[in-house]
Amino acid sequence: MGVVKSKRMPRAVREQQMLDAAVEIFGQRGYMAASMDEIAELAGVSKPLVYLYLNSKEDLFTACIRREAAALTEAVRTGVRTDLAADRQLWDGLLAFFTHTSHHPHGWSVLHLQARIHGEAFAAEVTAMREEIVAFVTHLIVVAAREAHRDPDLPEREVAGLAEALVGAAESLAAWANATAGVTARQSAATLMNFAWAGLGNMMEGRPWTLQDTSSDTAPLQVS
Amino acid sequence: MGVVKSKRMPRAVREQQMLDAAVEIFGQRGYMAASMDEIAELAGVSKPLVYLYLNSKEDLFTACIRREAAALTEAVRTGVRTDLAADRQLWDGLLAFFTHTSHHPHGWSVLHLQARIHGEAFAAEVTAMREEIVAFVTHLIVVAAREAHRDPDLPEREVAGLAEALVGAAESLAAWANATAGVTARQSAATLMNFAWAGLGNMMEGRPWTLQDTSSDTAPLQVS
Repeated sequence: MGVVKSKRMPRAVREQQMLDAAVEIFGQRGYMAASMDEIAELAGVSKPLVYLYLNSKEDLFTACIRREAAALTEAVRTGVRTDLAADRQLWDGLLAFFTHTSHHPHGWSVLHLQARIHGEAFAAEVTAMREEIVAFVTHLIVVAAREAHRDPDLPEREVAGLAEALVGAAESLAAWANATAGVTARQSAATLMNFAWAGLGNMMEGRPWTLQDTSSDTAPLQVS
Repeated sequence: MGVVKSKRMPRAVREQQMLDAAVEIFGQRGYMAASMDEIAELAGVSKPLVYLYLNSKEDLFTACIRREAAALTEAVRTGVRTDLAADRQLWDGLLAFFTHTSHHPHGWSVLHLQARIHGEAFAAEVTAMREEIVAFVTHLIVVAAREAHRDPDLPEREVAGLAEALVGAAESLAAWANATAGVTARQSAATLMNFAWAGLGNMMEGRPWTLQDTSSDTAPLQVS
């Protein structure tokens, strides 16, 4: 047992080192410009060993996407305590998301930028992660609506649309925050919480935004 | 004059027909799977003529991205009347955006999906359009803050973050709406307006979301 373990451990450890190096280089240089030489050098291993373990640049990149996607969804899930109030869950989830993306800017670049611009196969890997996060946010919104102590007047489709909007906003804000010096994860989470929560709260209580039409040339609008 | 015009017109018209066909095929099949044969056939011209006019599949795709990006930003700009109230401007802008993306689903697919997943050069074309839209939304938020009749307590960085969040939310919602049967442009605009406006309004009036911390194991949070 001990022998098997000591034989396996170095490979697992080395593989993680290769993935660490690959995420950094892919995130910094972009997928096309990243060289396997540079990745091997940063990982402190030979290039043939990288190919032996990860097979090809494509497979290495796919492994990076999968690892970073799993780490991000795990960070968000563990950041949220489902016994707390819905707005607290959303706040904790956003804070966990922006903390993770700001601590792992190369990982986020791999997921949000690189994985999307280098072909359909890589993009599909990210789509799977995104769907999981959207499902998680959808659930949060449903819980929040239930907590509003009335028959929640939010049709399923409206909730799905809100979850898409919130996830899209978070993705966009994370990319901007990482590219802008001095923006903290806490500030990003607060921006989005301020932006999103009041509107969500109003909708759940049946108070949608209504158009105060002060111009004389248009009929009053029903927005929903 | 008349002779020159009649010589030029057919080329301009034919080019637009080629671009119409190309956007439809690229949007439906994806960039890789799209064939120049199919595009030429749909445009009702010969394949050599497509190459004569647009040079290559790459150049044709770039031309599609540029045309669709210009059409989308133009639709949003002309949808907004800058003499109206800020919330009305935001509503009109969102409605124009979702109306355009729902009427041109293949164009939106080219911009939002295809242009992003097939290399850095195409992605850069879309980034330019996105920056223009973010600048436009940033301006709207600044105007809205000014309208709130008080020294607007929104730092420039906060406004930039809000604009990124709003644009990301709109992009994400448009992609979802086009993939979901029966969602109208008006519904999408209402979803996002409800989502965003209350939060923006609260912030501009100095009433950010605050955490009501009901758990005993954590210190009160200052979120911004």
